[in-house]
Amino acid sequence: MVLVKTVPLVLFSWFLLAHHASTQRSTYIVHMDKSSMPKAFASGHHWYSSTLESIKSVGLKSSDGHQAGPKLVHSYDNAFHGFSAVMSKDEQESLRKSPGFLSAHVDRPVTPDTTHTYKFLGLNTATGIWPASQYGKDVIIGVVDSGIWPESPSFRDEGMTEVPARWRGSCLVGQDFNSSLCNKKIIGARWFNQGVLAANPDVTISMNSTRDTFGHGTHVASIAAGNYVKDVSFFGYAPGTARGVAPHARLAVYKVLWDEGSYESDALAGIDQAVADGVDVLSISLSYQTIDLYENPIAIAAFGAMEKGILVSVSAGNRGPDFGTLLEGIPWAVIAASGTVDRWFAGILTLGNGLTITGWTMFPARATVRNLPLYYNKTLSACNSTELLADAPSAIIICVQSFDTAEFSDQISYVSQSNALAAIFISEDTSILRFTSFPYPGVVITPKEGKSVIRYASNSSEPTASINFQQTILGKKPRPAPAVSASSSRGPARSYPGILKPDIMAPGVLILAAYNPYMSVANIGSNIALSSDYNLESGTSMACPHISGVAALLKAAHPEWSPAAIRSAMMTTANPIDNTQKPIKDMGHDYDVATPLDMGAGQVDPNRALDPGLIYDATPQDYVNLVCALNYTREQTKSIIRSSYNCSSPSTDLNYPAFVALYDPLQERTTLTQKFQRIVTNVGDGAATYKVKVKRLKDSVITVSPERLVFQKKNEKKRFSLTIRYKTYDEYVINHGSITWVEENGKHTVRSPIVVTPPEPS
Amino acid sequence: MVLVKTVPLVLFSWFLLAHHASTQRSTYIVHMDKSSMPKAFASGHHWYSSTLESIKSVGLKSSDGHQAGPKLVHSYDNAFHGFSAVMSKDEQESLRKSPGFLSAHVDRPVTPDTTHTYKFLGLNTATGIWPASQYGKDVIIGVVDSGIWPESPSFRDEGMTEVPARWRGSCLVGQDFNSSLCNKKIIGARWFNQGVLAANPDVTISMNSTRDTFGHGTHVASIAAGNYVKDVSFFGYAPGTARGVAPHARLAVYKVLWDEGSYESDALAGIDQAVADGVDVLSISLSYQTIDLYENPIAIAAFGAMEKGILVSVSAGNRGPDFGTLLEGIPWAVIAASGTVDRWFAGILTLGNGLTITGWTMFPARATVRNLPLYYNKTLSACNSTELLADAPSAIIICVQSFDTAEFSDQISYVSQSNALAAIFISEDTSILRFTSFPYPGVVITPKEGKSVIRYASNSSEPTASINFQQTILGKKPRPAPAVSASSSRGPARSYPGILKPDIMAPGVLILAAYNPYMSVANIGSNIALSSDYNLESGTSMACPHISGVAALLKAAHPEWSPAAIRSAMMTTANPIDNTQKPIKDMGHDYDVATPLDMGAGQVDPNRALDPGLIYDATPQDYVNLVCALNYTREQTKSIIRSSYNCSSPSTDLNYPAFVALYDPLQERTTLTQKFQRIVTNVGDGAATYKVKVKRLKDSVITVSPERLVFQKKNEKKRFSLTIRYKTYDEYVINHGSITWVEENGKHTVRSPIVVTPPEPS
Repeated sequence: MVLVKTVPLVLFSWFLLAHHASTQRSTYIVHMDKSSMPKAFASGHHWYSSTLESIKSVGLKSSDGHQAGPKLVHSYDNAFHGFSAVMSKDEQESLRKSPGFLSAHVDRPVTPDTTHTYKFLGLNTATGIWPASQYGKDVIIGVVDSGIWPESPSFRDEGMTEVPARWRGSCLVGQDFNSSLCNKKIIGARWFNQGVLAANPDVTISMNSTRDTFGHGTHVASIAAGNYVKDVSFFGYAPGTARGVAPHARLAVYKVLWDEGSYESDALAGIDQAVADGVDVLSISLSYQTIDLYENPIAIAAFGAMEKGILVSVSAGNRGPDFGTLLEGIPWAVIAASGTVDRWFAGILTLGNGLTITGWTMFPARATVRNLPLYYNKTLSACNSTELLADAPSAIIICVQSFDTAEFSDQISYVSQSNALAAIFISEDTSILRFTSFPYPGVVITPKEGKSVIRYASNSSEPTASINFQQTILGKKPRPAPAVSASSSRGPARSYPGILKPDIMAPGVLILAAYNPYMSVANIGSNIALSSDYNLESGTSMACPHISGVAALLKAAHPEWSPAAIRSAMMTTANPIDNTQKPIKDMGHDYDVATPLDMGAGQVDPNRALDPGLIYDATPQDYVNLVCALNYTREQTKSIIRSSYNCSSPSTDLNYPAFVALYDPLQERTTLTQKFQRIVTNVGDGAATYKVKVKRLKDSVITVSPERLVFQKKNEKKRFSLTIRYKTYDEYVINHGSITWVEENGKHTVRSPIVVTPPEPS
Repeated sequence: MVLVKTVPLVLFSWFLLAHHASTQRSTYIVHMDKSSMPKAFASGHHWYSSTLESIKSVGLKSSDGHQAGPKLVHSYDNAFHGFSAVMSKDEQESLRKSPGFLSAHVDRPVTPDTTHTYKFLGLNTATGIWPASQYGKDVIIGVVDSGIWPESPSFRDEGMTEVPARWRGSCLVGQDFNSSLCNKKIIGARWFNQGVLAANPDVTISMNSTRDTFGHGTHVASIAAGNYVKDVSFFGYAPGTARGVAPHARLAVYKVLWDEGSYESDALAGIDQAVADGVDVLSISLSYQTIDLYENPIAIAAFGAMEKGILVSVSAGNRGPDFGTLLEGIPWAVIAASGTVDRWFAGILTLGNGLTITGWTMFPARATVRNLPLYYNKTLSACNSTELLADAPSAIIICVQSFDTAEFSDQISYVSQSNALAAIFISEDTSILRFTSFPYPGVVITPKEGKSVIRYASNSSEPTASINFQQTILGKKPRPAPAVSASSSRGPARSYPGILKPDIMAPGVLILAAYNPYMSVANIGSNIALSSDYNLESGTSMACPHISGVAALLKAAHPEWSPAAIRSAMMTTANPIDNTQKPIKDMGHDYDVATPLDMGAGQVDPNRALDPGLIYDATPQDYVNLVCALNYTREQTKSIIRSSYNCSSPSTDLNYPAFVALYDPLQERTTLTQKFQRIVTNVGDGAATYKVKVKRLKDSVITVSPERLVFQKKNEKKRFSLTIRYKTYDEYVINHGSITWVEENGKHTVRSPIVVTPPEPS
């Protein structure tokens, strides 16, 4: 699993600890069929305890003399029925024979996958979803992550009304966290680390409370629902007023990520509690290693949440850019891909001859580089050793990066130890252009720009240059936005490829949001570390809370909408076009046109989602029908859908606002036909007529029937079918197109992507 | 002359250039008696040109073939009658015989001598002088300095009314300075560099306009009259809303300090123009080398300004702390001493054992030093060589400063090149505690505090520490404030010791105000320079504009008051007590009690100055009587007072709100008597009775007659005499006390300091 760059050490320790634990007793997450619970038990918890007690190996003692036997870690009773417990393999075998047992698997690590983006998403105070939703007023977003830094100004509660009576959560007092730290913005704070402690019994939890020692949870929470904070920046970059997508939504915080390790059992406990507390939206920027839905406690808990009307937003993961790298393919959740923002952090290089070049820099201070001598020497320009740079003059030096000399990060490190006053780095490596680690005053420019600079430096008698740092540039240059981030995980979903995942894209590259103010987030030179109240972070972890925030706005504006309706509204109004009016591109594949497997339906457009015209709704039973069609065993199926549903109508043809047709490239080439049935609900103001418009796919024929849908009134439903007849290939080819229901004499357009794809990588 | 620390190179070049010039032709400043001007001349300028023409050595050519002969630099006609011109020594000798010639002397270099201070001075929006003066509305402050950075937000004109019709100045267009840069805040912008060019004919002026390439003029102007600017700081220190003392006063800017040199002739031209333009207050934060009033063009021009009702505020200079270091002793100006502010810039050091120490730091970034290992090794703690520090661990190291090892500035430089992550500097040198150059993360603590840190680092098994940077502490700790700054020049005035100089003290230590945003004002490591829109500067240069601002507030509230009345109001209400209710101390002398020779009447108190009760007024004729008593030649006297006055009533007993009795320590010990006559004007609301209260001086007897002053109405005047019978010493002893007129059944107290002192240093 790819981690955000600031926490590599933490991940390393998790794996070490997890391995250590598995050689002895292990934590198992146990799924129980609650309908089998004898009536004698007052609650699930009693039943689970009793079940565990019954399998205890009587008289067995551990090496340290303590009574051994299974030990309860968490009971789950809301999103998930069951418990987690530390058991031996033998005990786990006994447990499997207990009444009501559905499944058990070993607890596994989970890992965590800002703020001009509101403007980039078109949010504004004059019109659209912000005023319509009262900025997400009274909607509660549950954030399951690394906790929160409650003193961040993003979590002040100015402008917030009293906490509604329906809220059942609470603010738990813990280490460095008293109850006064909750307010009308942070209305819940709980933490779950029994899973960590079970896996690592000797560990001491260094911050035993909801306080975020990390920054990740704080960042994610403030993206979704941070209040207004003026004059924030990342060391002068991205300056402005920070605000979350739903600035008046409330936050309930569930800390499940720990310096000492992070486990599915704890994440599950957080989600279970959030459902019990009464959140409206769940924001889960976590990744995990489980693929199969019936073994994935997050997917199972998300099912329970969906049943209760909670929209679950989950990050796609950062395993991109390869095909089929998306593990978090939960059909009943919204899976968020990550895209770029139309913002660029620059240093303006001005040569003595007047030439101006906009380079990339993130040097975290206002360096004074003004009319200094400019120096170019071909040998020195390798900038790849301390010896070489011992001769560097007190000047701006020019470093040329080539893959056989030194990495940019090495070059900047060598230069920072020299006498040079600043550096111009000439590089064709565009991946540098997301580096926030920039410990020395300099700019990165392209080889083409570099030629002019070298020419001037070589031919002028007294060449000079200036660099203006802390420049933030908005707009279409140097690259159109959004583009799909290279690291965003790509579909099809490994759990089930027939439903389009990711669903949608949101900003996830260099997002400014609140952070742990004591974390080191930038460096100057080799030994000076700096921190900031607001940090720029990248990843689907940042895209997910943007979707959570938009979902909160939609929930506030349309309290009656189901999670599927909210998702449909976001997907059918998403934008597949970038800010140059061309199809969104894929950074991971040389800026080719992105496919729905990269970005789902496109970039979320909150104002259009407020009024989508038509909705593809889905009920819990619809998802049950899907699960029943997935060729799982009875136990596997019941793990997800429990006993309250039945498998009388299995169908993979979920009423989803996207269409995926699969083929096997290992088979001979042929032509296949797939027919989809859909029901759309008119959520416009009254009578409306829609006509279909098809954007064709290569080597396919699409037929929609009927081609016209006439609604007499609001909330009326209409059926249509879509048939795709498509050629298959003996190689990995992805074709994509779309259908759009276009309102006649009206403003609504309702778009669904269509993809023809192999189901999984070779 | 002591320069502010950021400009040593500039000063160096001045002296070089000045020396070069003096070997050839020189610029002379020539004072003329305008009453001698023949009526045939339309203006002074014509007369001066004609005079110069008449002394031209006909036919003489310079080595480069150009016609030589005297060359006019500036004509002066407002504050000063005369001109400056480049002449040979012979030509100057001829000039001396011309009709109306008064004096001539070689042009000499001048040198330049910020914002919680408004609060420290008690200014507030609820009551007192701010609302009473409408924040200095419509008063025009002329700033004679290095120009201005007009784009600084401190010079925005929000809240300012239209420029009054009486204003005769203008906004000159020049290099990088178009007329749109003036507004309702900056209403005048002119520059004067003919003197620089005369002294250095080959030089090219690098910024030929009123734009400040320096920062000093911008800083000074924003202290006096900067508008409100939110969220400013010096790299996180001193954060808050910047504002000048008179935020709604206007600024007229006269640039006379240049990268290429700065001369009296240009300063004089700036003052002369300011008087012609119609400023109300002149703020002159410049120093110069001339002592005698009749040779000091600034003093002479200040006389002209005073005649026109303009209050002139001048910095005392930064030659302290020794006795008699004050050169700028102009009796008709207000001379400002510099004091500390109740603000401290700190790094909070927290040891692993919980001990917390508030150290000094100005590291210009938010360094992350959190729970890092703490390392002490006696040898390493000298921190005085690269070799020694090559072994420094990745930890917080402890450096102990002793005068035989290394200076603090060397230690911090060595440490910054090591692998250490931060440093604790143990030092007893309190002068470090004003260093703004702090290029490496660390704190300075006292030897006493250091002992606890070393003990903990030596005795603990795993010592750790944290440092929180960018801390700004307000209040009485660690030192009471104000205290007189060590560098502030001390009286008695070298020009004439019988009038108390400095007059008053204002904040001048680590003052935050606007700056040239491209100047380097801080460093990180050895090669990274940083700039800031707001800079912390120290010196009497910063005290002077505080006084100018207060004078502007008083002028707005009392437009009828003379410059002497405004000064009297400031002096008699000044506070000799610090924020611990004890007498103000002198940083330059181990925190002994400060004398009036250090701080004048005390710290300016603007709200009390608004309503002083009684005024010691003085007319131009009173100053003439003083000058006539100074044993000058007729020409010397006329240099200052011109022909429009006569010397019929010479008297050194100026109606001044302070009393100075002199003795000669080289004479035998004896007892002397001095009698002073004073007239006070009742500026209270109506009838009032005052009774005198004497604070005795050692070895003296003070008699005041009468001891009670009964005023029937406003503006009534009363005489009193003060007789001091005092012992003299055969060593340098300064005794001081005061008299205070205390209103019976009223709130006014009118205090004047009394000093017995030798007239000058040995």
